[in-house]
Amino acid sequence: MLQSKLFTKTKKEAPKDEVSKNAILLSRAGFIHKEMSGAYSLLPLGVKVMQKIMKVIAEEINAIGGQELFLTSLQEKEVWEKTNRWDDKVVDNWFKTKLKNDTEVGLAFTHEEPLTNLMKEYVSSYRDLPFSAYQFQTKFRNETRAKSGIMRTREFIMKDLYSFSKDEKEHQDFYEKAKEAYTKIFTRLGLGDKTYTTFASGGTFSKYSHEFQTLTDAGEDVIYVDKDKKIAVNKEVYNDEVLSDLGLNKSDLVEEKAVEVGNIFSLGTRFSESFDLTYLDEKGEKKLVVMGSYGIGPARLMGTIAEVLSDEKGLIWPTTVAPFAVHLISLGAKGSKTEEETKNLYRQLQERKIEVLYDDRDVRAGEKFADSDLIGIPLRVVISDKTMAEGKVEVKSRGDGGERMIDEAELFVHLEKHR
Amino acid sequence: MLQSKLFTKTKKEAPKDEVSKNAILLSRAGFIHKEMSGAYSLLPLGVKVMQKIMKVIAEEINAIGGQELFLTSLQEKEVWEKTNRWDDKVVDNWFKTKLKNDTEVGLAFTHEEPLTNLMKEYVSSYRDLPFSAYQFQTKFRNETRAKSGIMRTREFIMKDLYSFSKDEKEHQDFYEKAKEAYTKIFTRLGLGDKTYTTFASGGTFSKYSHEFQTLTDAGEDVIYVDKDKKIAVNKEVYNDEVLSDLGLNKSDLVEEKAVEVGNIFSLGTRFSESFDLTYLDEKGEKKLVVMGSYGIGPARLMGTIAEVLSDEKGLIWPTTVAPFAVHLISLGAKGSKTEEETKNLYRQLQERKIEVLYDDRDVRAGEKFADSDLIGIPLRVVISDKTMAEGKVEVKSRGDGGERMIDEAELFVHLEKHR
Repeated sequence: MLQSKLFTKTKKEAPKDEVSKNAILLSRAGFIHKEMSGAYSLLPLGVKVMQKIMKVIAEEINAIGGQELFLTSLQEKEVWEKTNRWDDKVVDNWFKTKLKNDTEVGLAFTHEEPLTNLMKEYVSSYRDLPFSAYQFQTKFRNETRAKSGIMRTREFIMKDLYSFSKDEKEHQDFYEKAKEAYTKIFTRLGLGDKTYTTFASGGTFSKYSHEFQTLTDAGEDVIYVDKDKKIAVNKEVYNDEVLSDLGLNKSDLVEEKAVEVGNIFSLGTRFSESFDLTYLDEKGEKKLVVMGSYGIGPARLMGTIAEVLSDEKGLIWPTTVAPFAVHLISLGAKGSKTEEETKNLYRQLQERKIEVLYDDRDVRAGEKFADSDLIGIPLRVVISDKTMAEGKVEVKSRGDGGERMIDEAELFVHLEKHR
Repeated sequence: MLQSKLFTKTKKEAPKDEVSKNAILLSRAGFIHKEMSGAYSLLPLGVKVMQKIMKVIAEEINAIGGQELFLTSLQEKEVWEKTNRWDDKVVDNWFKTKLKNDTEVGLAFTHEEPLTNLMKEYVSSYRDLPFSAYQFQTKFRNETRAKSGIMRTREFIMKDLYSFSKDEKEHQDFYEKAKEAYTKIFTRLGLGDKTYTTFASGGTFSKYSHEFQTLTDAGEDVIYVDKDKKIAVNKEVYNDEVLSDLGLNKSDLVEEKAVEVGNIFSLGTRFSESFDLTYLDEKGEKKLVVMGSYGIGPARLMGTIAEVLSDEKGLIWPTTVAPFAVHLISLGAKGSKTEEETKNLYRQLQERKIEVLYDDRDVRAGEKFADSDLIGIPLRVVISDKTMAEGKVEVKSRGDGGERMIDEAELFVHLEKHR
């Protein structure tokens, strides 16, 4: 894409009331736009990153058999009364509204209820189980105070996966698969090193749930990390009994701030009981379906990447989710041979289906470099009169800052390898 | 995909209160699920169709330079007061809700206001124009009466594109491009023959707007069609003056019922005036930006396809949007050579990245065929003891019902050609 055509521009300043690093950087670089406290729109660069994050998640969830669906945001009172979660005293972050005929409806903050209700139409026999279903759908949560930039908002897309199993054993098998899929996702997104599988409170139906916590000062959670064993314990269950249960020693644990980038829950039969979601087993006996739920917020991930992978100059996207693979910059004058060669390389990259942002703007070199650092595309390729004289291009890694001169053939090989 | 793993099953009956053909067929075949009047969830088969419809739309909108973004659903009162569209007396289909601090917020029924407001940050010079931006985002509309199945709902994804131009001429150039893109979209979706570019009321800033109307008795609109000239006039502007203006003769026009599958509007400076969205031209003079808006509802399109491309047995998806390219059916007994060969073909199709639904269920042939007709995958491939004896497979087109015996090599060639 030609940078001159991109309608967003970088900014020196973020909105005045913005305090979190992720929102400041993402606003300044033109990835997001604050509509109101706790509600951010995605601009073209942000959409590209978001779509790539969602693609990685979808690939890993499809790989464990998840079937994609898309449930409505509008929710009927009757469905949520079955679990007693309609009441604002029980769930304090509902957004509710009304139909023309004054019927109250809610905006989904999660989707266990409607999905369990829906499955009653499709599950009746042991032959129908197990399976899992997921979606990318907006959740609305009426947070009292929205802070942390795009990491905690009133409206956000969530990948929520739900599993339906015949019994606890079958459920545990899927739960482990989901745990592995989540680990793969965070690794592919460049957060593997800093993300810990964390024991947290399990609720009624299981001792623990698992959170995936990424270490960052911007996080709202406190966890205790065993860096050797690569596991952690959330403060909420940090006590002697739990540590002994998990075989952890207090002396090996370090207190850290972290953000919850994913969580997985055993729901047991809590929802299937409320909705009478049952099946007939091989002996013809009626049994309750055992459920699990598994959430990841792609926007929170985007925010976490912005917090963790960035420096004073700007964002540093991992290749997997970068809006473009290459930031191509010409330092030649308008109409020069250098500009001509840059255009030529731009065309070649496009033909090779390499995603490239070509800074064709008529601005000074310093501004191009500063914008490039702020936007954070992994590889910068510069063509100048100097590189032309050597028949090469200058490549610079946004990550480690490493610069070198290579010829175009080498560039193509490098890009193919890091695709 | 293995049909035995698909959690949805076909149904003999649709929900009792369902009257529209699209909702009845799509419910029975397992594409959608009614959550409440005017709100439908998409099930896995429905998600697949929806994603393909959205992909076709995105490709054509990208081809004319549209930049994708994603605006919030939650909307601030102040923004909409600028155009006087916050008032429920002016816009009667708002869904409104409240933040914890009692601030009233709305759920977007369209996005002209927030987008014009946002663009103030990015447009200041003639160099910033023209450009266009679009999104796929849920619209909430508090319809008094939701009917017509998924063709008119209270919550639906819309592709909305907005253009920003320096002057009327530049706007008209883009408007024509958008019109052509829309025509391409409906043609690719199999609705080309039945879809008419239709003159409709233009509002304050232009004489006409253009609707894309697909002929169907399920439509809520009445249009007058000149089938030779391939254009139509909406009843709302059907009068002698307009006909003479458009060079149409009453005697050539046929009255038809139709559904509006897309519309394009010249907005003039209505929104840029309200938000003071201006730029400095080459002479340094301040000018108002000229805008256009262009909408398509992918779910309404899915509903329209279900209405128009279906028969008494079920759905008939065009290849471009079918949930799978091939419905593979084995009539061999469990463990037979015939079943073995079907599995083998299933693997080969998957290796070739052909999307295939393999009916591996242990049910009688009649049920498999009935389900296959209902689901409406374009090509059915049957392997039976009889086809095995000839070393061939039986292929049947869901569209024209044409059956023939071909060998597997021929099948692959056919599928490559119709990819």
